[in-house]
Amino acid sequence: MKPKSVRVFEVGARDGLQNEPAMVSTELKLQLIRDLLAAGVQDLECGAFVRPDRVPQMADTETLLQTLGREKLPKAAKFWALVPNLKGLERALATSVKNIAIFTASTDGFNERNIGLKVSEHLKVLAEVVTQAKRHKLKVRGYVSTAFGCPFEGTVAPKKPIRVAEALWKMGVDEISIGDTIGVGTPNQIAPILKPLRRSIPLKKIAFHFHDTRGTALANALQALELGIQTLDSSAGGLGGCPFAPGATGNLATEDLVFMLHGMGIKTGIDLDRLCAASLRLAEKMNRPLSSRYLVAYKNQTIRAPRAS
Amino acid sequence: MKPKSVRVFEVGARDGLQNEPAMVSTELKLQLIRDLLAAGVQDLECGAFVRPDRVPQMADTETLLQTLGREKLPKAAKFWALVPNLKGLERALATSVKNIAIFTASTDGFNERNIGLKVSEHLKVLAEVVTQAKRHKLKVRGYVSTAFGCPFEGTVAPKKPIRVAEALWKMGVDEISIGDTIGVGTPNQIAPILKPLRRSIPLKKIAFHFHDTRGTALANALQALELGIQTLDSSAGGLGGCPFAPGATGNLATEDLVFMLHGMGIKTGIDLDRLCAASLRLAEKMNRPLSSRYLVAYKNQTIRAPRAS
Repeated sequence: MKPKSVRVFEVGARDGLQNEPAMVSTELKLQLIRDLLAAGVQDLECGAFVRPDRVPQMADTETLLQTLGREKLPKAAKFWALVPNLKGLERALATSVKNIAIFTASTDGFNERNIGLKVSEHLKVLAEVVTQAKRHKLKVRGYVSTAFGCPFEGTVAPKKPIRVAEALWKMGVDEISIGDTIGVGTPNQIAPILKPLRRSIPLKKIAFHFHDTRGTALANALQALELGIQTLDSSAGGLGGCPFAPGATGNLATEDLVFMLHGMGIKTGIDLDRLCAASLRLAEKMNRPLSSRYLVAYKNQTIRAPRAS
Repeated sequence: MKPKSVRVFEVGARDGLQNEPAMVSTELKLQLIRDLLAAGVQDLECGAFVRPDRVPQMADTETLLQTLGREKLPKAAKFWALVPNLKGLERALATSVKNIAIFTASTDGFNERNIGLKVSEHLKVLAEVVTQAKRHKLKVRGYVSTAFGCPFEGTVAPKKPIRVAEALWKMGVDEISIGDTIGVGTPNQIAPILKPLRRSIPLKKIAFHFHDTRGTALANALQALELGIQTLDSSAGGLGGCPFAPGATGNLATEDLVFMLHGMGIKTGIDLDRLCAASLRLAEKMNRPLSSRYLVAYKNQTIRAPRAS
C-alpha cells in the first residue's frame, strides 16, 4: 500500500517555533519560509491567530502573512495558519491567508487545561469556525491532538481520536491530521486508529503528525506509510522541542523524513540538500543546534569527507 | 511475522565506547555492565582484542573480562569480545571469555582501509580464527559491516553482504549480525538482504545492527521485525557517535529500541527504568549527555511532571 509520492506538510514555522524561548524575528521566519519554498516544500504552516500575550512567538502572524502575500512565490505554495476560535478566524480573514488549521485534543484532560473546554464543548465552537471559514472559501485542516497518549490521561483508546476526527470531518474540514502531541506513540498504535478511520474519511485526506520525543516518530511514519498514508507532518530541523526540557526533541524532523522517503523511492518534490541548507541557516541565526539526525550528519559531512565510525 | 520477544544485543561497552575521545575507566565500564545486567540485559559486548595503540579505549579488555569472570553474575549473562585475527584470539583464549565476535566489511573499499585486506583475503584469515575458536568451544558471532552503504563505495548491492554472511555461516559461526556501519540505510534495504539470506541461514541466527546517524535506525529495526528478525543490536544511551562529528549519533539507542518494542507488546526481559538509570549514571560520570531520544525525555520527566509541548 506504500504510496509513490508523499506530501510533506511543514509545520516548523508554527508548531516548531511556537514554544521557542528566544524570540525569533519575523525576518528570520520569512527567510526560513522562502528557503523552504526554494527547496520544494509546498505546504507550510506559518503562524497562529492565538493570543499574543500567551504565545508571543506567534504575535507577528499578520505581518508575516501580509509580507508573504505581497511576494512572488511558487504557485503551488500553500500557507496555513492556526485558528483556535471565531476571534482567530476574524483575524485570519483580515489577511490574505487561504488555508487555516483548527485543533482539538482527543482527551478532555488535555483540552480542559489547554483550552478550558471539554472536547465535546470545543467541537461545538469549532463547528461554527468551520461554517464561517467555508462561507469564506477557506481550506480547513483539522488537528486531532493527544491521539496516542495524553500527559493527564495516559494511553489513549483509539476510539477517542477516531470520534473527534469523524466529528471534524462531518463539519466539513478538508483534511485531518492525527497527532502524537507528546511523542509517546509506537507503531502498533497506528492501525487501530487508521483502519476504522479510513472507512469514513478518504485515505488521501488523512495525515499523521508525529513527535520524536522518544525516538519513535520515523518508525511510526513508516507504519503509517505501510497503511497507505500519503501526507506526513514534519518540522524543519526537528524544531519544536519543549523549551523547558533541553535536548528534548519535538516534531519529526523534515530532513529525517525526506531522507527515508527518498531512500525508499518515494517522491516528495523536495531537494534534500536545499532543505538542509534552509535549516542550517536558521540554526546559525538562532545560534543553537537543531535536533534532526540527518541534519547533524549532513553538517558534519560538509566539514569533512564521510568516514567510518 | 513479528516476534513475541526480542533479544537485545548490547554493544555499548564496545562499539559504543571504542571511539569515545576521553578515556573511560575500567571501573566505569564495569559499573555500566553491572547496571545493564541488573536491568535485565543478557548479551553484552564488552571489549575488543585489538591493538591497544590503535584503539586505546579497548586496552583494558583483559582486565575487564577477568574482573567480570570473578564476579557472581546472572547465569544467563553472556559477555562478548571482538577478535580481529589469530593474535586477538590468543588473547581471548587467555581470559575466561566464552563468546567472541569477528567482523568483516561487505565492501573491499572499507575493508582495505580498515584492515588492509580485501574481503576475500580477510575471509581466509577469519576461517582460521573460527576453526581455532570452535576447537576451544567458543561461541562466535560474525559481523557483516557496511551492508547498506560504504563511505568509499556508496550504496552497497545486497549480494555483497549476503555473500559475506553466507561465507561466515559456512565457516561455522553461531550467528550473523548485518550492520549499517555508517547509518545510511533505509527500510526498503532490509528485505533484499534478509529474504534471500533467511533461506540459507535460520532467521533466529540473523541479527541486524543499525546506526542512527541519519535518524532511520528505529524505522529500519521495525522493518526487520516485520520480516521476522528476533535479535537487534543496540547501544546504551545511543553511545557510539563518531567523536570527530559532535552530535552525530552512533548506534541505535537501547532505550529507544526497548521503548518501541515494549509499546508493541514485544518482550525483551529488560526493565526500561533501570536501563535509563544505567545510562544516566554513565552520562553523569562521563560528563556528557547521551543521544538516546527516550533517555533525554526520561531524564526531563524525572525533573518535572510530563507536560504538553
